[in-house]
Amino acid sequence: MAELRFDVLGIGNAIVDVLARADDDLLVRERLAKGSMRLIDAAEAERIYGALGPAVESSGGSAGNTVAGVASLGGRGAFIGKVADDQLGAIYRHDMRALGVTFDTPPLADAGVPTARSMILVTPDGERTMNTYLGAAQALGPEDIDEGVVAASAITFLEGYLWDPPRAKDAFRRAATLAHAAGRRVALTLSDSFCVDRYRAEFLDLIRSRTVDILLANVGELRSLYETAHLPTALAALQADAPLAAVTSGEDGSYVVTPGRIDHVAVDPVETVVDATGAGDLYAAGFLLGLARGIPLTDAARLGSLAAAEVISHMGARPATPLKQLAAEAGFEMGKW
Amino acid sequence: MAELRFDVLGIGNAIVDVLARADDDLLVRERLAKGSMRLIDAAEAERIYGALGPAVESSGGSAGNTVAGVASLGGRGAFIGKVADDQLGAIYRHDMRALGVTFDTPPLADAGVPTARSMILVTPDGERTMNTYLGAAQALGPEDIDEGVVAASAITFLEGYLWDPPRAKDAFRRAATLAHAAGRRVALTLSDSFCVDRYRAEFLDLIRSRTVDILLANVGELRSLYETAHLPTALAALQADAPLAAVTSGEDGSYVVTPGRIDHVAVDPVETVVDATGAGDLYAAGFLLGLARGIPLTDAARLGSLAAAEVISHMGARPATPLKQLAAEAGFEMGKW
Repeated sequence: MAELRFDVLGIGNAIVDVLARADDDLLVRERLAKGSMRLIDAAEAERIYGALGPAVESSGGSAGNTVAGVASLGGRGAFIGKVADDQLGAIYRHDMRALGVTFDTPPLADAGVPTARSMILVTPDGERTMNTYLGAAQALGPEDIDEGVVAASAITFLEGYLWDPPRAKDAFRRAATLAHAAGRRVALTLSDSFCVDRYRAEFLDLIRSRTVDILLANVGELRSLYETAHLPTALAALQADAPLAAVTSGEDGSYVVTPGRIDHVAVDPVETVVDATGAGDLYAAGFLLGLARGIPLTDAARLGSLAAAEVISHMGARPATPLKQLAAEAGFEMGKW
Repeated sequence: MAELRFDVLGIGNAIVDVLARADDDLLVRERLAKGSMRLIDAAEAERIYGALGPAVESSGGSAGNTVAGVASLGGRGAFIGKVADDQLGAIYRHDMRALGVTFDTPPLADAGVPTARSMILVTPDGERTMNTYLGAAQALGPEDIDEGVVAASAITFLEGYLWDPPRAKDAFRRAATLAHAAGRRVALTLSDSFCVDRYRAEFLDLIRSRTVDILLANVGELRSLYETAHLPTALAALQADAPLAAVTSGEDGSYVVTPGRIDHVAVDPVETVVDATGAGDLYAAGFLLGLARGIPLTDAARLGSLAAAEVISHMGARPATPLKQLAAEAGFEMGKW
């Protein structure tokens, strides 16, 4: 068995967030569904950017945020994702490596295709609505999956958004195959209820075929997956399909689902949600790091909620405070390597 | 006389801020003087960036921040500054125009020189230490000064940092000449006490020759200008030299200095200084907009302090909340055009 070098390897779209505050009026005018992520092309990206207020740029991407969270918690992370050889790509790489994350995917050599960016409109209620131009992230393919890194990672974490770019699906399958061949586990986040709508049958197949061992979702995505508004029904269906899942439910905390039982793990309320961007990604960071280190599942869920609470208390999808310190203050002991 | 179209025209280095939290240890290791701005070359920029933690990018630059503040307060702003034709340059232009600021300076056509960036290390005490690579900003020259825009601006505001790039000095002088020919006023900020050290004699000459009508400084810069640790002595010297000045003194508020009198204007304490970046720039925004609209000088100083208080309460040098609203809540009436 390969040496264990990473708690979590994240594979996902390498995206720079362009964060701007926006009124609900702008969402109405642009016909955007609040809380969703939609894909746009270069021309649409330019048009929306023109309508957007002053913004702040920050490295993002779902799996990228999760790995950043793992590193901030004191875990060891690796990332695979495609940036372009441009300024935003250099920023993305820097922000990963500055956290100690191993990120060696070569940038796309095509000068005409820039690094992916997501224009994130943060409304006064703290909700975020994302408009993503995938750019270079579309070029991620199976050749980018580093076998050595996958084999050295306790958990390989894949985002459902990878089902969007055409070749990433092959990268996803290759990563899952390599991880299992090395005796490691594979986790998937459903990403977004619209994403689930696009790929429902395929996602169900990934779970039922055990291509994925651990599922992460929020209640909206889970309801979409099983096409039911009734949460207990969806949770029961999930329990029948998946060996292990964590389902977040906003201020209601989360559910840890195993074949034997469903545990509800409550959370302390967060005073003000400034920006919900990254909440699910950071929950995944805590939960997966907890799993990788072998702490009880409900504690892993609490660690996830702790990381999520930090990220929704400020603008941006990555921790503004070292999470390791917050976790230690809350009594978490991550154990030694 | 040309039609008045702008309250404040800012002319300065167009810089994208790269903001990262840092420990005091990093400052010691890199031998950086806390609270200062130092200029670095491309190689040094790369080295420091490598040592920097995860960062967030945001449009900045001293005069740029001031004009953004003027626009956020509901005033009309214009900006002249040089970016490159690259991703960071496009971000800078977007962030200005999204505020309604007129910014038409053509980008630098030299593909080898990128848009300026300043790596800003924010320490736990909220102080900021800046490392600036000027890049394309160095190319600002007198040909970039749009006569029509200068003549249409009540106040042309120049940053002392313009004395650093070689040709910007000529741009500065041309702007001042054009402004006075159009019957407008010229304001200068001393920018930084190290900047004052570099150009003390020239700055004094700008004030004494009335090239500059309004001076903005903080107490550290003023002490450096007159080479005295004794504030009353420095204020008296300033009073003898300048027709109008505003001197900020952190939590002690500011002084409005005119030949006839010196008024101290107190401020409400700010609970926690998260990031001091932009404090002086935003004070200038409120003070200059107040002057342009003809409100009493001490009220203009209060408006400056209100804008500064907002910007130091969060990361980043530009307002996160529309200042117009905060000003209205505080009873400021900017008047009509």
